[in-house]
Amino acid sequence: MGGDQGPIPVVAGMARVAKKDPDVTFVVHGNKDELKKRIKKYKSLTDRCEIKPTTKVISMDTKPSSALRNGKDSSMWSTIETLKTGLANVAISCGNTGALMATAMLNLKKAPGVTRPAIACLCPSPNASGFNVLLDAGADIKADEKDLLCYSIMGSKFAQNGLQLNKPRIGLLNVGKESHKGRSEIKAAYDLIAEHEEPNGYEFVGFVEGTEIFSNKVDVIVTDGFTGNTAIKSSEGAARVIRNQLRQAFAHTLFSRIGGFFAYTSLRRFFKRIDPRRANGGVFLGLNGIVIKSHGGSDAVGIEAAIDLGVKLARSKSF
Amino acid sequence: MGGDQGPIPVVAGMARVAKKDPDVTFVVHGNKDELKKRIKKYKSLTDRCEIKPTTKVISMDTKPSSALRNGKDSSMWSTIETLKTGLANVAISCGNTGALMATAMLNLKKAPGVTRPAIACLCPSPNASGFNVLLDAGADIKADEKDLLCYSIMGSKFAQNGLQLNKPRIGLLNVGKESHKGRSEIKAAYDLIAEHEEPNGYEFVGFVEGTEIFSNKVDVIVTDGFTGNTAIKSSEGAARVIRNQLRQAFAHTLFSRIGGFFAYTSLRRFFKRIDPRRANGGVFLGLNGIVIKSHGGSDAVGIEAAIDLGVKLARSKSF
Repeated sequence: MGGDQGPIPVVAGMARVAKKDPDVTFVVHGNKDELKKRIKKYKSLTDRCEIKPTTKVISMDTKPSSALRNGKDSSMWSTIETLKTGLANVAISCGNTGALMATAMLNLKKAPGVTRPAIACLCPSPNASGFNVLLDAGADIKADEKDLLCYSIMGSKFAQNGLQLNKPRIGLLNVGKESHKGRSEIKAAYDLIAEHEEPNGYEFVGFVEGTEIFSNKVDVIVTDGFTGNTAIKSSEGAARVIRNQLRQAFAHTLFSRIGGFFAYTSLRRFFKRIDPRRANGGVFLGLNGIVIKSHGGSDAVGIEAAIDLGVKLARSKSF
Repeated sequence: MGGDQGPIPVVAGMARVAKKDPDVTFVVHGNKDELKKRIKKYKSLTDRCEIKPTTKVISMDTKPSSALRNGKDSSMWSTIETLKTGLANVAISCGNTGALMATAMLNLKKAPGVTRPAIACLCPSPNASGFNVLLDAGADIKADEKDLLCYSIMGSKFAQNGLQLNKPRIGLLNVGKESHKGRSEIKAAYDLIAEHEEPNGYEFVGFVEGTEIFSNKVDVIVTDGFTGNTAIKSSEGAARVIRNQLRQAFAHTLFSRIGGFFAYTSLRRFFKRIDPRRANGGVFLGLNGIVIKSHGGSDAVGIEAAIDLGVKLARSKSF
């Protein structure tokens, strides 16, 4: 219920997954009549959805603390509870990120050894898997050296299970590659992450810069949530400007329109590859359960990607 | 001398500017014989260059502290000194950013009222000027609320003089628009920047997110140097991936090649618009003198853009 467009794209996304994956079933939380009506529209969803009726909706501007105090009858709370009781294997929400993290933390608790949970995001990359993992993408605004080590271990595990990598390469985000650069906690984290390489099955490649987030020099990029969130959003902003300018370029002259006609399938493939909806879904790491935060403005394709990711992680037994 | 490719692209960039702008002259610092030979290759540079011979070169991995101790006979030091003595109106370097900032700080001193100098970067935007200003892009790794206010005032002045804006719109970078989000110094800066709107001739639009760095909702984006540097570099990385994938898309099939042929001029215009070299040049703000840091890997086109920017700022009397 809590996404920008309510349940419409959510149910449409479920239907897309249901059509291709016969073993997935859904527990849906929110206004019963509305959900029933929506679900009826899709043949693929027949007999595969259970509705948990709830009355409250956590809005996008609700503070996390208020979501904990007053959120008990909300669709968000009910979603997390279903995961806690074992009725669901994955919880997915398009709602308020801060409220979702707080609700998940309170109900699911931190996993053993975790200092601070984090949100992992998939970034398009030329690596074989097609993606790099960046964390923390915004669960918290700060991280000390122990948290950054914790992120390295969680990110490495996520890359092993979500991207099927044997020995993920971890990079620590900094403003330069030289060892004298950066804030003190980042320099301290450098040593800690290097020390813990062996037992955790990752390869530490050292400091990486923002330019390398989308490169094949690394599989996992570790940073605090403030920096990670800004890096992801800035890149999205840059990609949006480029897409718009490319569309304008093709509409500009008769020749360019003819060119666009001939290059249509290639351009479509190109736009699909850089489509940010494909990488939708921030995964909460460090909790006792798999929680995925889908973009608030997600359409059916975005929701589908988030569910696909959740299914993949739930099927990977060691996650 | 200190850029990735030494003086070759520097002199080539000077020649490009000299050809179109008859009133610009140059003071060049470095190996005398090498520079003389290089300059001779360009007719447009005849009788317009003075060479200051120097022996040392500050390398890219020199620490700022060591550049101050041992840098006196370097091309970098000599460049800043020429600005200090008034022989030049602008100093431009492709060398080590940290060393350049330290050398400039020591020799030029902070301007009155400045708490912390900053580097301002131009980001492509759909605004009429074609650019937004982001600062700090990496002069320092931290900034408190007073520094962020200082950046707002300097950034506003820079936008007035460099982009000819009457009343620049200032945005403070944060992980969300809601007032409860972000680190404590950012919340404190919000109030300070709002209070100082009137006397400084800017309009404060409040918190902006990374997605808006390249938007027309704002003219100046204010943040600390760690975040700003990461935002710029992440966007560069994303843009690079997109450019490569677009090139691949057009090479993919015969049809797409035909399409590329017809759309050639539009595509060329597109690639020119998103060319990062056009926005080359980080401007050091808050010092007694105009210093521009060009990208270390700049080619002649990038150097030309940095010199053009310097000329524009030097001619704007109030800067």
